[in-house]
Amino acid sequence: MLIIGEKINTVRKNIALAVEKRDVETIQKEAINQVKAGVDVLDVNVGSPLKEAENMRWAIKVIQEVVNIPLCIDSPSPETIKAGFQVCKDKRRTWANSITLQKKRMEGVLPLVKKYNCPLIALCMDDKGIPSSAEKRVEVARRLIKVVSDFGIFLDNLYIDCLIEPISVGQGKAQQTLATIRMMKNTFPQIKTVVCLSGVSFGLPGRGLINRTFLPLLIEAGVDAIFLDPLDEAIMATFKAANALLNKDESCLKYISAHREGKLKV
Amino acid sequence: MLIIGEKINTVRKNIALAVEKRDVETIQKEAINQVKAGVDVLDVNVGSPLKEAENMRWAIKVIQEVVNIPLCIDSPSPETIKAGFQVCKDKRRTWANSITLQKKRMEGVLPLVKKYNCPLIALCMDDKGIPSSAEKRVEVARRLIKVVSDFGIFLDNLYIDCLIEPISVGQGKAQQTLATIRMMKNTFPQIKTVVCLSGVSFGLPGRGLINRTFLPLLIEAGVDAIFLDPLDEAIMATFKAANALLNKDESCLKYISAHREGKLKV
Repeated sequence: MLIIGEKINTVRKNIALAVEKRDVETIQKEAINQVKAGVDVLDVNVGSPLKEAENMRWAIKVIQEVVNIPLCIDSPSPETIKAGFQVCKDKRRTWANSITLQKKRMEGVLPLVKKYNCPLIALCMDDKGIPSSAEKRVEVARRLIKVVSDFGIFLDNLYIDCLIEPISVGQGKAQQTLATIRMMKNTFPQIKTVVCLSGVSFGLPGRGLINRTFLPLLIEAGVDAIFLDPLDEAIMATFKAANALLNKDESCLKYISAHREGKLKV
Repeated sequence: MLIIGEKINTVRKNIALAVEKRDVETIQKEAINQVKAGVDVLDVNVGSPLKEAENMRWAIKVIQEVVNIPLCIDSPSPETIKAGFQVCKDKRRTWANSITLQKKRMEGVLPLVKKYNCPLIALCMDDKGIPSSAEKRVEVARRLIKVVSDFGIFLDNLYIDCLIEPISVGQGKAQQTLATIRMMKNTFPQIKTVVCLSGVSFGLPGRGLINRTFLPLLIEAGVDAIFLDPLDEAIMATFKAANALLNKDESCLKYISAHREGKLKV
C-alpha cells in the first residue's frame, strides 16, 4: 500500500502563506520531512483558484529541487493540473488528482493521463454529491471506469477515491467506506482504490487516535493508497504494525528494524 | 463487545507470589483496578496444578469481597473450575473457561454449565493442536457445538475461542484468526466468539503497539469478547475509538465523553 503525504496543502495556513510569499524554504522543508518519514508520493495542493496554475508551477519546481519521488498534482482545475505537469521532470510517474464525472474535468485531464500513461485519481461522486451506499458508489465508479477506459487509458493507472466521510456526521460512515473498498476491489479487480484518512475524524477531539485506529481497517479492506500525515509518528507506527499483522511485512522484519532504530512510537 | 480483564493470572510473577502468600491486598487491587478501567468480566487464573482448586477458592472469595462483576474461572482442570463455582456468589453469570474436545474436560464442566445456564468458553482445538486454517477451526467448532448442544446447553452461552497465534511464528497468523471469526459467525450465527489479544505480539518488541493495532480488526471481524490488559491506556483508547468508528457508539457520545474526562490516551 502506498502512502501519499498530504501536508503540502494550502488548507494549512503556513502552507498558504508560504505559497503566497514564495517561501521556498518552508515548502522544501515540508517536502523533505515527508520523504524522510517514508511517503511514496507527495501531494501538492496550492488552493485558491486565483493564480492557482502559477502557484502550482512554482511549487512543483521548488519541490523537485530537493526530493525525487512521484508528485501528485492536486486540483479540481484541469488547467492547474496541466500547469503542474508542464514543469514536472518525470511526467510518467506524476499523479493527476483528480477527476470526477464532470465533463470539463474529464476532458481537461484525460488527454494528459493518456499521453503520459500516469496514475489518475477519480472521485467516486456525481452531480448529486457523495453516493450514500457502497453499491451506489460502485455504480458511479462503473461510469467513471467506462469513460476512462473508452478514452484508451489503462485501468491499472486508475485510483478510485472511495471517499471517507466524518463519523461525526452520521452513523456507519466509516463502515460504508470499508464496504465500498471491498466491493470496488471485488467488482473491478483491475482498478486501484485510494482514500484520504484524516477526514474520518473531522469534528471530533483526539483526531490522531481516530485516524490511526481506522488505518488498519482500511489496509485490511484492501485499499491501495492512503493520503495521510506522515509526520504523525503514532500513525506511521500503526502503519508498520498493521503491515506486520496483515502479512505485508515478511517475518515482521521491517517492523523489527523500525523498532530497533527507535522509529516506532510504541 | 465484552472486555475480559486478563491480569489476574499466575503467569505474572507478582500474581503467582500473591496467590502463594495469600496476599489479599494485591489480588483485590488487581481486581479493583481492572473494574475501574472498564472491564465487563474478570478472568481468574491461579496456575499450577498443585493446590489449584484451593487457590481458586481463595482467589474467588477475596475478589468477590471488593468487586461485583462476572468472574471467569480459568483453568484446564474441571476440578478447579468446579471449586471456583462452589464459592461464586452468582453462579449464573460466572464464566467457565475452558473446555476442549477432550472428554475429561467436557464431562467435568458441561454439567455445571447446564445447571447454571452460564457462559462457557471452548477452545477451537483438538488432540492434534491448533487447526491450521479457518475452515479446519470451523470443523472443530462444529464438533464442539454438537457435543455442547446434545448435552442440552443453550448455544447462546457458548463462546468459541477462535485462537490467536503470534505473528512472529508464521506468515498470515493474524489474518487466519480474522478469517476464523468471520467464518464462525457466518456458519453458526447463534454462537459467540472470543480471543486472547496479547498472544498476537508474542516474540516481538513493542507488543502494546501490535496488540492495539490488531484490536479494531478483531472488532470489525465481529468478535464478541476479548481478553486483554485493561490497564494499557492506549489499548483502551483504541477500543473506544474503534467503537466510534464501527458504529458501536451512537453519535460517538462515549468517545467524546471519555475524551472530555481525560480518559483517552490520544
